[in-house]
Amino acid sequence: MLSVADDTRSKGRGAADTGTAYDPMVFRPLTFFDAVPRFGAGKDDPRQYLERCLEVIAAREPVVKAWVIVNERGAREAADASAARWKNGKPLSPIDGMPIGIKDLIETKDMPTQMGCAAMEGNFPKRDSALVRALRDAGAVILGKLVTTELGGAHPGPTTNPFDPRRTPGGSSSGSGAAVGAGMVPVAIGTQVGGSVIRPASYCANWALKPTYGALNRGERQGYSQSTIGVHAGSPVDMWHVAIEIAQRAGGDPGHPGLFGPPEAPAPVKPQQLVVMETSGWKDLDSSTRDAFERVLESLRAVGVSIIRRGDSRLVESFERGIASLKAINSEICAFELRWSLENLVEQHPGKLSAHALKKLEQGRKMNLDDFRQRLLEREDARRRLAAIAPLGDALISLSSPGPAPINDVDGPRPTGDAIFNYPSSSLGAPAVTVPLIAVSGMPVGVQIMGQLHEDARVAGIARWLAANVAPINVD
Amino acid sequence: MLSVADDTRSKGRGAADTGTAYDPMVFRPLTFFDAVPRFGAGKDDPRQYLERCLEVIAAREPVVKAWVIVNERGAREAADASAARWKNGKPLSPIDGMPIGIKDLIETKDMPTQMGCAAMEGNFPKRDSALVRALRDAGAVILGKLVTTELGGAHPGPTTNPFDPRRTPGGSSSGSGAAVGAGMVPVAIGTQVGGSVIRPASYCANWALKPTYGALNRGERQGYSQSTIGVHAGSPVDMWHVAIEIAQRAGGDPGHPGLFGPPEAPAPVKPQQLVVMETSGWKDLDSSTRDAFERVLESLRAVGVSIIRRGDSRLVESFERGIASLKAINSEICAFELRWSLENLVEQHPGKLSAHALKKLEQGRKMNLDDFRQRLLEREDARRRLAAIAPLGDALISLSSPGPAPINDVDGPRPTGDAIFNYPSSSLGAPAVTVPLIAVSGMPVGVQIMGQLHEDARVAGIARWLAANVAPINVD
Repeated sequence: MLSVADDTRSKGRGAADTGTAYDPMVFRPLTFFDAVPRFGAGKDDPRQYLERCLEVIAAREPVVKAWVIVNERGAREAADASAARWKNGKPLSPIDGMPIGIKDLIETKDMPTQMGCAAMEGNFPKRDSALVRALRDAGAVILGKLVTTELGGAHPGPTTNPFDPRRTPGGSSSGSGAAVGAGMVPVAIGTQVGGSVIRPASYCANWALKPTYGALNRGERQGYSQSTIGVHAGSPVDMWHVAIEIAQRAGGDPGHPGLFGPPEAPAPVKPQQLVVMETSGWKDLDSSTRDAFERVLESLRAVGVSIIRRGDSRLVESFERGIASLKAINSEICAFELRWSLENLVEQHPGKLSAHALKKLEQGRKMNLDDFRQRLLEREDARRRLAAIAPLGDALISLSSPGPAPINDVDGPRPTGDAIFNYPSSSLGAPAVTVPLIAVSGMPVGVQIMGQLHEDARVAGIARWLAANVAPINVD
Repeated sequence: MLSVADDTRSKGRGAADTGTAYDPMVFRPLTFFDAVPRFGAGKDDPRQYLERCLEVIAAREPVVKAWVIVNERGAREAADASAARWKNGKPLSPIDGMPIGIKDLIETKDMPTQMGCAAMEGNFPKRDSALVRALRDAGAVILGKLVTTELGGAHPGPTTNPFDPRRTPGGSSSGSGAAVGAGMVPVAIGTQVGGSVIRPASYCANWALKPTYGALNRGERQGYSQSTIGVHAGSPVDMWHVAIEIAQRAGGDPGHPGLFGPPEAPAPVKPQQLVVMETSGWKDLDSSTRDAFERVLESLRAVGVSIIRRGDSRLVESFERGIASLKAINSEICAFELRWSLENLVEQHPGKLSAHALKKLEQGRKMNLDDFRQRLLEREDARRRLAAIAPLGDALISLSSPGPAPINDVDGPRPTGDAIFNYPSSSLGAPAVTVPLIAVSGMPVGVQIMGQLHEDARVAGIARWLAANVAPINVD
């Protein structure tokens, strides 16, 4: 096992460039599903695929800084074993041989799990989280651990945006978004409790699935009542393959039925009607981002998709009002649920937590059980309002972030950007897929499709249709 | 910190005897709430209370073997600090100074957490589980770790029944049941996923609360969709105090509203009508236990409590049919949810798991996601049938175990006894309190009051009334 810092910085630049402006008409993400037919034909194999990934990492990691650690030796062994299976015509799954990065909140038996947190330095439980075991059982190559913000919270790590190193990649799945956006891996695993999958995916031109709450087994990370495992990918096919292969092996969270859907990526499906979710972030959008999104809606109308929004329906208006407080609700629920765990860290590792984490702890300390119960009720109310609009559209459509990635500002209130468009899917437990469809001033912005609980496959199908039928928007 | 083996065996016997036959008219459990008035008056204090506990441990532990480790030094420091608070008239809570034992599945910052499992030997995460932190914050004295069966499963530890060392104390909270039954501590914390709190409490003449699912924060132990923290105690007052002090500080599980009820133990409340829950264990009861339970029902009728059972109501009959398969449902749900965790242990620690644990792993490996989904649906159906009988009675009444503790049989299929009367409260998530009310051949058997979800306080009140208004039954 080699850390990236030791191993790759000396290798110089590979084919991929660093920080090129994003143009959705030109950008070619790294994909895996379309390499697989060549594996069978003997023209390529998982080891060669892995080596290409390592070359991109060597070239771009010095600037992007997506990885905490890369297990080159372990990955090469796994890739060779996979290559032998493909050669024998006996792959374990469609993702056999796929190099995958794991967010460093999630335990891997062969690498430490340090959570971007000084207090967790050297933490090495030598266990595979349920999803990591499932991925290995499916033949995937666990390549390394990806940078997370401190404990998945607000304090950022070193990762930069692959399209502009002055900007944040988003968080908390910073390394996951950046590694996929930089073409280092076709898929990375992230987690979302507020906006930690869909937002970095939006900033880094990823596809990503934030599934229904409980649909992918969180393993040891069951501490929040609204966090989920998410999948970042260069394509919706790889994204779905990874999600469903996890679910088929490790299921969902305890007591949850797990991800529903077909073994292959859901076919593109044209929606008849979509409900716009404006959120309380709408009024603060920059005009470029807002115009780009309106142009997406215009394109949809042009091909016969009806669009309704808050002005068109009192139920949609009621839904928007219901989700308007989700930022505060989300914040307090998480502060209360995280408190005992932060108390342990602050006591056992004094001085090792950031100001952001200490602020979260103080927020939790100020709450009592009835405060928490009240917030749970408010969240439940918003969930009812989502269920109430189910008959009004095939899905909801929204932005995935309020514009492109902002300039890095470690000491600002939101160093990894604003999750205002992500609280609904997190708090409501609803499935969401982000589609890289917009460029604003050379930076990516995602369009989000969100559905009712357990409609992950429908959401993925509509997202694929959207990508295939709406021309990317590129605005200044 | 001293292990019991090093420290107590040489001290000889204290006041308490070993393995005396149980007579509910004579047995005096250890209580805390009634010692507290003397703390205020300066006639006793938590340090003296602790020393009395340590004397009983020294006397009885060589035979009972309830403890994995006793932190005498830490406990004495905590007891001294508590004594100072009482002296100053500023106790932190009604349980300030109460010595409490913690089941060794639950993390404590000052003692290892080895889970009765060779593969976990030396595991010492130096964190307090949420409930342990809450107890310390309430001033309680965390005295030591109590023996659990291997990982809370079927493979027993060394603990013996305090009323007959040839017999099992029950499991998986073996040490918790035995320590309270032996008068070593007034309260011990256990956990239940099948029958692991109510059954050992029944076998060891404890009171115990297995609360509504999610009502007490499980901290790091969120891996099962039906496990709960439980409280073993010598009295219903101490039992309630500990439960509510945990809930007020640490809340329930993530996303759950936590234990509802008053800060003091719910007052005894006479039920108007009770529904008998026979379970599928009814037909296999020995005649002494069955007769004793029927005498309890007779006593209830004599004081004006109506009793209805399956022959009296088609809804009750439907409920009984709904719970008849819970043993198999419970077993498969747990096997599926536990699988990835057992896979890690068996891979990282070959040869360190018992035959019982390996069998559980094999059971999990044979299941697929749809098998699990089917079992979740069946469990949900049984839950609906419980909700349907809510209007028929103030609570349900049942045995807490199918007779007294059996003779230890490590190699038998159920070394710690049969949980057939406990699957309903576990699988349905329903609150249950066991009352030490019966003796069969000199061994304790509990009577169980079970309620609808979140009726913990009502259940505790009815249980207290039962203990105060039905004479204990002592049969051969």
